[in-house]
Amino acid sequence: MYQHDGARVAPTGGSRPTAHGQCGCIDVHTHVVPHDFPRYVGSRADAPWPSMVAAQACHRHVMVSGKVYRTVSDHAWDTWRRIADMDAADIAQQVLSPMPELLAYWLDPDDGAAMARYLNDTIASMVASAPHRFIGLGAVPLQDVDRAVAELDHAVHQLGLAGVEIAGNVNGVPIGDARFRPFFEAAERWGAAIFVHPLRPAGLERLVGPAALEQVLAFPGEIGLAAASMITGGTLARCPRLRIAFSHGGGSLPILLARLQHAWDALGPLRDVIGKAPRDLARGLYYDDLLYDATAIVSLIGLMGPTQVMVGSDYPFAIMDKDPVGRAAALDVRDEWMPLLRGANARRWLGLEGAVP
Amino acid sequence: MYQHDGARVAPTGGSRPTAHGQCGCIDVHTHVVPHDFPRYVGSRADAPWPSMVAAQACHRHVMVSGKVYRTVSDHAWDTWRRIADMDAADIAQQVLSPMPELLAYWLDPDDGAAMARYLNDTIASMVASAPHRFIGLGAVPLQDVDRAVAELDHAVHQLGLAGVEIAGNVNGVPIGDARFRPFFEAAERWGAAIFVHPLRPAGLERLVGPAALEQVLAFPGEIGLAAASMITGGTLARCPRLRIAFSHGGGSLPILLARLQHAWDALGPLRDVIGKAPRDLARGLYYDDLLYDATAIVSLIGLMGPTQVMVGSDYPFAIMDKDPVGRAAALDVRDEWMPLLRGANARRWLGLEGAVP
Repeated sequence: MYQHDGARVAPTGGSRPTAHGQCGCIDVHTHVVPHDFPRYVGSRADAPWPSMVAAQACHRHVMVSGKVYRTVSDHAWDTWRRIADMDAADIAQQVLSPMPELLAYWLDPDDGAAMARYLNDTIASMVASAPHRFIGLGAVPLQDVDRAVAELDHAVHQLGLAGVEIAGNVNGVPIGDARFRPFFEAAERWGAAIFVHPLRPAGLERLVGPAALEQVLAFPGEIGLAAASMITGGTLARCPRLRIAFSHGGGSLPILLARLQHAWDALGPLRDVIGKAPRDLARGLYYDDLLYDATAIVSLIGLMGPTQVMVGSDYPFAIMDKDPVGRAAALDVRDEWMPLLRGANARRWLGLEGAVP
Repeated sequence: MYQHDGARVAPTGGSRPTAHGQCGCIDVHTHVVPHDFPRYVGSRADAPWPSMVAAQACHRHVMVSGKVYRTVSDHAWDTWRRIADMDAADIAQQVLSPMPELLAYWLDPDDGAAMARYLNDTIASMVASAPHRFIGLGAVPLQDVDRAVAELDHAVHQLGLAGVEIAGNVNGVPIGDARFRPFFEAAERWGAAIFVHPLRPAGLERLVGPAALEQVLAFPGEIGLAAASMITGGTLARCPRLRIAFSHGGGSLPILLARLQHAWDALGPLRDVIGKAPRDLARGLYYDDLLYDATAIVSLIGLMGPTQVMVGSDYPFAIMDKDPVGRAAALDVRDEWMPLLRGANARRWLGLEGAVP
């Protein structure tokens, strides 16, 4: 199992096999925070540009606008610590993506482009430190679609990243809005994998309780609506070869989908807008299995198909699933689906088919 | 099957049995729009008080602030039309509740109390016209909690309604907020059933497509967050005998619940706030089965228990499930659960145990 208390973990060498060969498990949902950020050199006096300051042993505070946004351990940037955890958890490869808050679409486009470039360089160098163990997803400044396309080009073609992480909305505008279509068309054209993660979710005003509920309760609805917007906004129909994955098992999407399919069958206006059946479009998307419940994961596989679901953990954050490989291994699904779930689906999503780690 | 095109329907007398005896099916999710509203006599010049005007044959427009809010057929108010549809669909009893927009929490409290009283009188008289076929849920002006308690008292003790319908939020404040606790304590004390329905849902800013998506895509997240707020806000732990049902199968709640349970297990702060395990609290709630998908309904029953799920259709609106009894009958569940789903759970929720229609 992953450790998540900041302690260094030695490979177990114990009873669990840790073979990273052709059946090695890929964890598609893991996050990176750099050890440091460059000093802000932009022109905005009050830009919410992050910085890092030392905290307790092996930890650092992510500071934004003078406040601690989150305190993270060195697992967030130290590839050797990560590899020790991966060995203990029987993870062959991690897909690295930025901590979502760092996507920072609220920055000025110049600053956003600089932040994306820094994140992409950082993640590319983490991959370079152990290219058989890490696959990189970068960032693009979607607050400016032209710059986002340019940065995607750089990330994929110059840095060798497999694609990028994006949020479900960009300053409140859902990703299915037509303004983002040139970005998705570029991703489709270049075979770049897209990983969609909640950020500044809708529904915060409906939460009653501690701040942690933002991640716990608002993330699933946000990612479900983001996926639905790609269906109802027409982008998926226009980009049939786009390889796009939704985190947190697509959140509420399975619940929304039956209702959307019913409305598409029963109500005229939706059928005019969405050319293809919503259920068929949803079965062309990828999903991690970060649902914390075996029954829910099996339902997701049943609904979306055994070729579309992948292992994901949210490493190294507090809410992470500590034993994603064990959870997957215990699922009541057909034996021949297990290699798909453990790695083959991720390789197909990432455009690495045929590439054995 | 229900007809929903406004045509009068004769009882079939055909192959489907229509016995309304001790096994009769109860449809817990059906809505009422009155044929007329009283003229506005309040003091606000611009109050969004509804009115009805004639439309095409057998239809009337619900007008609010000079615009058509919705056009409804006489099935919305005519009990004989409803009974013909019920006979054709093998429904023994309908639970009547107001079209949610009529809850109108945005009205001035005086006006809101007058509207709730009018709705309650209307629904009570519909029940009185055929007391073996209808069970009534009224409305309360939750924009003023004291008045809501007073109207609940009147609705239950004077008019004989089984309880009331409420929305998942009141002018943006989720029902799990502590300010509403006196209302839920009164409902628990008096054994009044509560039916929670989405209204003015969160997440509208995340939709891309036609206006109909509000109901299709934003309702499930809204009802899921409303149910979660009753767990995380502490009301359910404080009112253990409250009988409360969530429409649309609880919406996204099943997805939220696994994540909330994981966070409750893994993160300290949530355990301090929510005394009892979220999964156990959720299994004390009731849910309709309006999910439009057999697999999703079976999953809901598996998650919440066979004693907590009830048949619901959204009659007589366009998005309704046209054959809720047939859908339930075809579910792959244990035979002995079928009478629970068809009626016994509804009778327990409504406080009608032992009352055979």
